[in-house]
Amino acid sequence: MKVAVIMGSTSDLPKVEPAIQILKDYGVEVQVRCLSAHRAHVGLSAFIEEVNNNGTEVIITAAGMAAALPGVVASQTVLPVIGVPLTSAALDGMDALLSIVQMPSGIPVATVAINGSKNAAYLALQMMAIHHKELKDKLVAFRQDNEKQALKANQEVMEKY
Amino acid sequence: MKVAVIMGSTSDLPKVEPAIQILKDYGVEVQVRCLSAHRAHVGLSAFIEEVNNNGTEVIITAAGMAAALPGVVASQTVLPVIGVPLTSAALDGMDALLSIVQMPSGIPVATVAINGSKNAAYLALQMMAIHHKELKDKLVAFRQDNEKQALKANQEVMEKY
Amino acid sequence: MKVAVIMGSTSDLPKVEPAIQILKDYGVEVQVRCLSAHRAHVGLSAFIEEVNNNGTEVIITAAGMAAALPGVVASQTVLPVIGVPLTSAALDGMDALLSIVQMPSGIPVATVAINGSKNAAYLALQMMAIHHKELKDKLVAFRQDNEKQALKANQEVMEKY
Amino acid sequence: MKVAVIMGSTSDLPKVEPAIQILKDYGVEVQVRCLSAHRAHVGLSAFIEEVNNNGTEVIITAAGMAAALPGVVASQTVLPVIGVPLTSAALDGMDALLSIVQMPSGIPVATVAINGSKNAAYLALQMMAIHHKELKDKLVAFRQDNEKQALKANQEVMEKY
Amino acid sequence: MKVAVIMGSTSDLPKVEPAIQILKDYGVEVQVRCLSAHRAHVGLSAFIEEVNNNGTEVIITAAGMAAALPGVVASQTVLPVIGVPLTSAALDGMDALLSIVQMPSGIPVATVAINGSKNAAYLALQMMAIHHKELKDKLVAFRQDNEKQALKANQEVMEKY
Amino acid sequence: MKVAVIMGSTSDLPKVEPAIQILKDYGVEVQVRCLSAHRAHVGLSAFIEEVNNNGTEVIITAAGMAAALPGVVASQTVLPVIGVPLTSAALDGMDALLSIVQMPSGIPVATVAINGSKNAAYLALQMMAIHHKELKDKLVAFRQDNEKQALKANQEVMEKY
Amino acid sequence: MKVAVIMGSTSDLPKVEPAIQILKDYGVEVQVRCLSAHRAHVGLSAFIEEVNNNGTEVIITAAGMAAALPGVVASQTVLPVIGVPLTSAALDGMDALLSIVQMPSGIPVATVAINGSKNAAYLALQMMAIHHKELKDKLVAFRQDNEKQALKANQEVMEKY
Amino acid sequence: MKVAVIMGSTSDLPKVEPAIQILKDYGVEVQVRCLSAHRAHVGLSAFIEEVNNNGTEVIITAAGMAAALPGVVASQTVLPVIGVPLTSAALDGMDALLSIVQMPSGIPVATVAINGSKNAAYLALQMMAIHHKELKDKLVAFRQDNEKQALKANQEVMEKY
Repeated sequence: MKVAVIMGSTSDLPKVEPAIQILKDYGVEVQVRCLSAHRAHVGLSAFIEEVNNNGTEVIITAAGMAAALPGVVASQTVLPVIGVPLTSAALDGMDALLSIVQMPSGIPVATVAINGSKNAAYLALQMMAIHHKELKDKLVAFRQDNEKQALKANQEVMEKY
Repeated sequence: MKVAVIMGSTSDLPKVEPAIQILKDYGVEVQVRCLSAHRAHVGLSAFIEEVNNNGTEVIITAAGMAAALPGVVASQTVLPVIGVPLTSAALDGMDALLSIVQMPSGIPVATVAINGSKNAAYLALQMMAIHHKELKDKLVAFRQDNEKQALKANQEVMEKY
Repeated sequence: MKVAVIMGSTSDLPKVEPAIQILKDYGVEVQVRCLSAHRAHVGLSAFIEEVNNNGTEVIITAAGMAAALPGVVASQTVLPVIGVPLTSAALDGMDALLSIVQMPSGIPVATVAINGSKNAAYLALQMMAIHHKELKDKLVAFRQDNEKQALKANQEVMEKY
Repeated sequence: MKVAVIMGSTSDLPKVEPAIQILKDYGVEVQVRCLSAHRAHVGLSAFIEEVNNNGTEVIITAAGMAAALPGVVASQTVLPVIGVPLTSAALDGMDALLSIVQMPSGIPVATVAINGSKNAAYLALQMMAIHHKELKDKLVAFRQDNEKQALKANQEVMEKY
Repeated sequence: MKVAVIMGSTSDLPKVEPAIQILKDYGVEVQVRCLSAHRAHVGLSAFIEEVNNNGTEVIITAAGMAAALPGVVASQTVLPVIGVPLTSAALDGMDALLSIVQMPSGIPVATVAINGSKNAAYLALQMMAIHHKELKDKLVAFRQDNEKQALKANQEVMEKY
Repeated sequence: MKVAVIMGSTSDLPKVEPAIQILKDYGVEVQVRCLSAHRAHVGLSAFIEEVNNNGTEVIITAAGMAAALPGVVASQTVLPVIGVPLTSAALDGMDALLSIVQMPSGIPVATVAINGSKNAAYLALQMMAIHHKELKDKLVAFRQDNEKQALKANQEVMEKY
Repeated sequence: MKVAVIMGSTSDLPKVEPAIQILKDYGVEVQVRCLSAHRAHVGLSAFIEEVNNNGTEVIITAAGMAAALPGVVASQTVLPVIGVPLTSAALDGMDALLSIVQMPSGIPVATVAINGSKNAAYLALQMMAIHHKELKDKLVAFRQDNEKQALKANQEVMEKY
Repeated sequence: MKVAVIMGSTSDLPKVEPAIQILKDYGVEVQVRCLSAHRAHVGLSAFIEEVNNNGTEVIITAAGMAAALPGVVASQTVLPVIGVPLTSAALDGMDALLSIVQMPSGIPVATVAINGSKNAAYLALQMMAIHHKELKDKLVAFRQDNEKQALKANQEVMEKY
């Protein structure tokens, strides 16, 4: 299983790293790139071309402000593209959210929450799990574990009051 | 290939139908339901349980206002869940968009544009195409055809001026 | 008098505690739970079922981001459900506000201000006071006391200038 | 059972009427007033005083733009006050929503959706049902009926596709 | 010359003080009150009544969140009422701005910028200067002085580059 | 009594006319101009100069989009300037509201509701009434009449239900 | 003088045509293309390459929703790129505005008003007029003519009241 | 080559300085002024007049809040005017953005990102490069250098994971 993670700027790295870590924890081979749609479009196109032909299953993209990266990637592949809107200096991430989610018909981007790179990783895993039985089992176990932890937290809260 | 399409209200049907049509055009078996997270949660849970075990690969959900449906579905499955925010009487769809996209960590919803049910269908197809070689080929052909039409439209515009 | 307080995450606890304190100060029995609509929906449904049958009079819910909890609780009870939208990392609480207040017809959530858990407590008290004469008297006294303090503060401001 | 319904302007009447009808259908005695916080504050205070002493259990208020009515009513009673933000010529109801929901500590307004007067009625009924056993039974039946209709609609949608 | 300054909460005092200082600097008699529309409405009405009859010429009001104070004051006087929207914990002052500026026909509030209490003072002075010749002269001088300082700052900037 | 009314474009006339009519009904001499801050700034400055010296007491300005007119007028006079934000093709008047209300310190604009030209007229009247005793009496009578009509409307609503 | 006008979709043509007409009226050679950044990126890159080498002086781009076109064009040229945000089915153009204006450092897009294609044309003309003396003279004359018409409209308004 | 840079307040200087530096680095003669449209309009008009006649090619303007400066400058010149919206105490720069970008037809302002003064400089350079061959070459080299650095950063990211 192979996922490509593309961010627009190295300053986005701390917000993107949780996704990379989760994917690796699930045994996914991760290709990480920093290729802005605006600053490195030729390199970006070359990488998308590579990804289209090397068995990559999902592409995760993360960008802030006028976040064209997810849509530009989506337009050059039929692999599912996930977009993570990032907060920047102004407007609290609303600019990136609208720039990513409001895609025209025919070129979808699977948008997750503002700064939601963890969910980008889980969404990628869920997409790959459609046909990877063992991954699906792991995700079911993760959910059950989450629920167990949630119920334990609930137990502690209950006892506190 | 099997996709479930769940809307929150029968009044959403005209906005959801384009997705159903696209999926059928690609030979996908579509299970359509109208099961509100708020009005029919038991029926909804039963259907998600069914879907989790009948070979369905992707779930598309569409809802307006305080659109809890996509997140509630996502919390009961590890199948990828796509969310379509719908416009309603006020706020131009912003309420549904934020209710769908801002999911907490661990339970992603793949959000598309406001009223973007066509893209929900294409995104579902792209997810399934990860492992369905012939579907991937059809999507590549669709994109090429789209590009061809786009260039033809461009030609006409060019000649007009 | 019995009130259930449900939050979506233990990280919400500091924002919810003022409500618990106020309720206890008024002699209300408070059942506190941390049960996310997305991470612990079975436990949540079980608790709502319990609450529907143990003499609880009001349910307070608090959640941030795509805050489905209040609506999901409201859909499984005819007890009045109060929703407190919480701020999170982005969008200043607007996402939670719209996710909670824009409920469809038939399933109301009584929404209070962003981070307004104190008012959730007072609103719960006012609902119970409809038929609890002594609670109503206490609330009237609280309001009179508030007014007295307000007028005292006014006196100090007046004298300062 | 007695509910007061106060709107700010006679032009709001068509948006408020569904609430009145629902309350009457449930056998509630409804007192309807048109008393703007800005244009008729003395009459408004007199009516709140009356309502505070005539066995009224809940007050529903509806207003648009800088919707002060719900808060002003809430400040003069410890009865639960429900606020319905109404759309007007500009800003799609956002002005009324924020004017109603963002109440200061100690004076809550139970806010429902923009133009959500039906839910104001149901919320009022749910508040009264805390202690009116037969009303609670009716609301449970209403919810069951709603669910039945929802499942019937679902059946029709299912069969159509 | 007499101006009344009313704020909703003593916590607003630091944001309101610049207005008081400016008014005093211009020789205006300032009556400062802290009278919330929601917590001290009787005291507020009494003060407005007093102000309506003691030669006060303008009323400045400042409030945050669901800022009903300016409108409530405006509804009980034909003196010009200035409203200053204050920022609070969430929404960056947008709630207060809309709650103050969107007044219904017949009851205007002269709204200034978010946290703009200085401009509330200058606006009050300009209103009184309509008929106070010497005040008008002072304001003209203030503007000329402002312009002189602006041009001096410009000179320094010019020389720096 | 003399008021100047300046709009930015002749297309604004229908939205501004109610203000002119109200002022005339109160016996105010109205000078109406269509002088855009962007298209006719020399003519605008000339008119402000004239207004500063012909006994005009208040200036009403109305503009849409990037509504610079109110601020530009305010910067060239110490007469009180009222600003009316107008809706235009996009953004529902929010652009004009923020362009008018967010003035820097020292140059206030008294902002009223979006499309609120009637209130601009009443606010101008209230400013002039500070020293025009008979105008103040008329405004008090207008308010009393308004209240009477409001109470009559209330009576009709009361009887209807 | 040569300007390229690129829109994202033929449905944008009615909103873009005023720009084309203005440019032609000023004797500019206009190359009109319909080349979506998402649907025709190869054709788009080819056209930008052509434009970079055929003496084109300015590029005007217009797009709605997640409007990536202006930024993508800007990233492949050092010609000045003007962006026109277009309204589409939801959000009143706010999505396109933020997607176009919030460009990262180094790749500017000169953004004009929502649906402001006329101003895109005038801005292009002003850019070219930096060195085209006769065009500058025409623009000065256009402004003078505009001012004359504005003053004539003012005269008519003046006389009407 | 000559560019004028005008800011509204000396407090804007730190946000504007990056633009000045970039322009100087490219050998552009920069005239820096601090001339508020509201506080120094006569000085501003005089400077625009000067700039219109001293060979200046582009004007950069930067302002916050109700940012009238860019539009006012644009209305007095046919030189291209670039507007930089600046964040201030509230609303995260949205007020300045809308005040600058939503210009009426005939008077365009080339708006860049919130706090985007660097891009204002690059946009000015690109406008001047239309006819300054050597500047164009420098900008092309800058872009190539940017791309090289971007690819180097990408290389480092690639190797890290």
